[in-house]
Amino acid sequence: MAQATFYEGDRTIRVGESQPIEPGPGEVQLQVSHCGICGTDLHIFHGAMDGRVTMPAVLGHEMSGTIIQVGPGVDDFATGDRVVVMPLAPCHDCPACAAGHSHICHNLNFLGIDTPGAFQSYWTVPAETLHPLPANLSLKHGALIEPLAVACHDVRLAQVKAGDHVVVVGGGPIGMLVALVAKQYGAEVIVSEINPYRVTLAQDLGLTAVNPQEVDLVKLVMGETKGAGADIVFEVSGSGAGAAIMTELLRARGLAVIVAIFAQKPEIDLFRFFWRELRLRGVRVYESRDFADAIALAAQGDLPLDQLITDIRPLGALKSGFEDMERGGEVMKILLEL
Amino acid sequence: MAQATFYEGDRTIRVGESQPIEPGPGEVQLQVSHCGICGTDLHIFHGAMDGRVTMPAVLGHEMSGTIIQVGPGVDDFATGDRVVVMPLAPCHDCPACAAGHSHICHNLNFLGIDTPGAFQSYWTVPAETLHPLPANLSLKHGALIEPLAVACHDVRLAQVKAGDHVVVVGGGPIGMLVALVAKQYGAEVIVSEINPYRVTLAQDLGLTAVNPQEVDLVKLVMGETKGAGADIVFEVSGSGAGAAIMTELLRARGLAVIVAIFAQKPEIDLFRFFWRELRLRGVRVYESRDFADAIALAAQGDLPLDQLITDIRPLGALKSGFEDMERGGEVMKILLEL
Repeated sequence: MAQATFYEGDRTIRVGESQPIEPGPGEVQLQVSHCGICGTDLHIFHGAMDGRVTMPAVLGHEMSGTIIQVGPGVDDFATGDRVVVMPLAPCHDCPACAAGHSHICHNLNFLGIDTPGAFQSYWTVPAETLHPLPANLSLKHGALIEPLAVACHDVRLAQVKAGDHVVVVGGGPIGMLVALVAKQYGAEVIVSEINPYRVTLAQDLGLTAVNPQEVDLVKLVMGETKGAGADIVFEVSGSGAGAAIMTELLRARGLAVIVAIFAQKPEIDLFRFFWRELRLRGVRVYESRDFADAIALAAQGDLPLDQLITDIRPLGALKSGFEDMERGGEVMKILLEL
Repeated sequence: MAQATFYEGDRTIRVGESQPIEPGPGEVQLQVSHCGICGTDLHIFHGAMDGRVTMPAVLGHEMSGTIIQVGPGVDDFATGDRVVVMPLAPCHDCPACAAGHSHICHNLNFLGIDTPGAFQSYWTVPAETLHPLPANLSLKHGALIEPLAVACHDVRLAQVKAGDHVVVVGGGPIGMLVALVAKQYGAEVIVSEINPYRVTLAQDLGLTAVNPQEVDLVKLVMGETKGAGADIVFEVSGSGAGAAIMTELLRARGLAVIVAIFAQKPEIDLFRFFWRELRLRGVRVYESRDFADAIALAAQGDLPLDQLITDIRPLGALKSGFEDMERGGEVMKILLEL
């Protein structure tokens, strides 16, 4: 049966029947194969974005699937194509779009948040959101392309170079992918993470990883950089502690990259920014080239993607996935398979 | 008589005899002509930097003067040359120096703070700190080169371009110079300042200036930029209010430049940095090319430098200068003439 999950507020997920939507002009209908559970989905489950989602809400945006129907005017894709969706629908009219930054459009429609998403058997989307998967990339790994594109965007905008000393503060799925991509760029990477399971997993992935509650991270980084400090710190923890340590870790003119969503406004050592001429930039989602980069990188086969997948469960297990994620502990990425 | 002023702690300035120092190898002795009072000098007078200065301390670093003696091995300068001093003595050995950022050397010796300065008749300095003044630039205007070089550094690192919408938050001497230099680069500049005297002065200088307690600055900037926001905000106020409004003013991927010295760590809206992919960079002092730029710009004669000089007083009036500055009100730059 065609299924969908509906978020109905108050931590309630209902599993019901999927209502396939005929693809209109420029649209395609997908049969969803896999869809990962994102931290943002968990945030919605917690009720933190109830003002933004329309209930009952079908969430899910880290997906892979196969085209089963093509709407009028779609020439570049055909039934049977294996694809992923870049889930952004910009307005093409606001100042950010006009300036060429449509991925951070002022009126951005995020598929799976603002409009229905991929936690359902069939999903109809604009063809312009599609990226084809190469034959050597599985649909399972395809569901990791969206978070991997985030990491590709972040590392690209940070202008990571071979030999750079990089610290990633926060070793969740995005932090781990940022670390792996930065390492692919030739950087020396240290992951800072307080969850012991994630520290060990990062080490198993071939990364240097430490618990900053056990190791003096500043001392470690200064030791490895002859007192200079890190070239780039990715703040992926969203914590006040992370925002505080990033300024201590950076070399003169080093760059802090704000990847995390800060629910609170942390105190920032602007004196240190002045004193060391530090730089900072926020980074959000991805652009089309980042999806292309992520697909190429995943297809290359060097990334340990399987090790990032904690579990693959049926669609009906969405709520159990949320519950495992909020408990924390031994969890990285949970995929749902439809 | 050769005079010097000595800061002796506890808001005490003693006027005494200057002890001229014979220039050693690579040094020159200057007869000081003019020296401006900097906000940092006031900070020292308030006792806030007593741990850094060696008392009795001769302060002063915004100076102009004439060479009266040349030490051994100085070939590029001669007695009678009119010069200004870039008051930085880096260690040439730390990681920042090694990376080419000697102006923010980890062990920087700032002449007039860490070692004796120019509030005295004769000042002996390394010849490598000197920049010659062209014939058409007066010694009086020469004393404004150091703060103008700060502004040139800030505007250069911000990569201000013609047509950019720039907001300068804080219209003291540095903010005013930043605004004037940005305007020279062709930017559309708005100065935000709460002191009515400074608002009027900025307007007299040909700048657009508003009091953000009377005018909705965000609305004004959004109106002038068709809802996009400013390209660049210079934070020169060092206030929590300034740090808060900068994130509201910026366009997608806009740049906040931290010029001010923040004594407190303000709360920063890192979510906004993420959401709009904003950028931030700290900027401090200047590099040699900024001194060259400042001298060229001042010599060009287009900057209203005279209007920035509130008063010119004898050396013995240093304390009265501090007192006028701390009262605020109708004061911009006070110069001492020796």
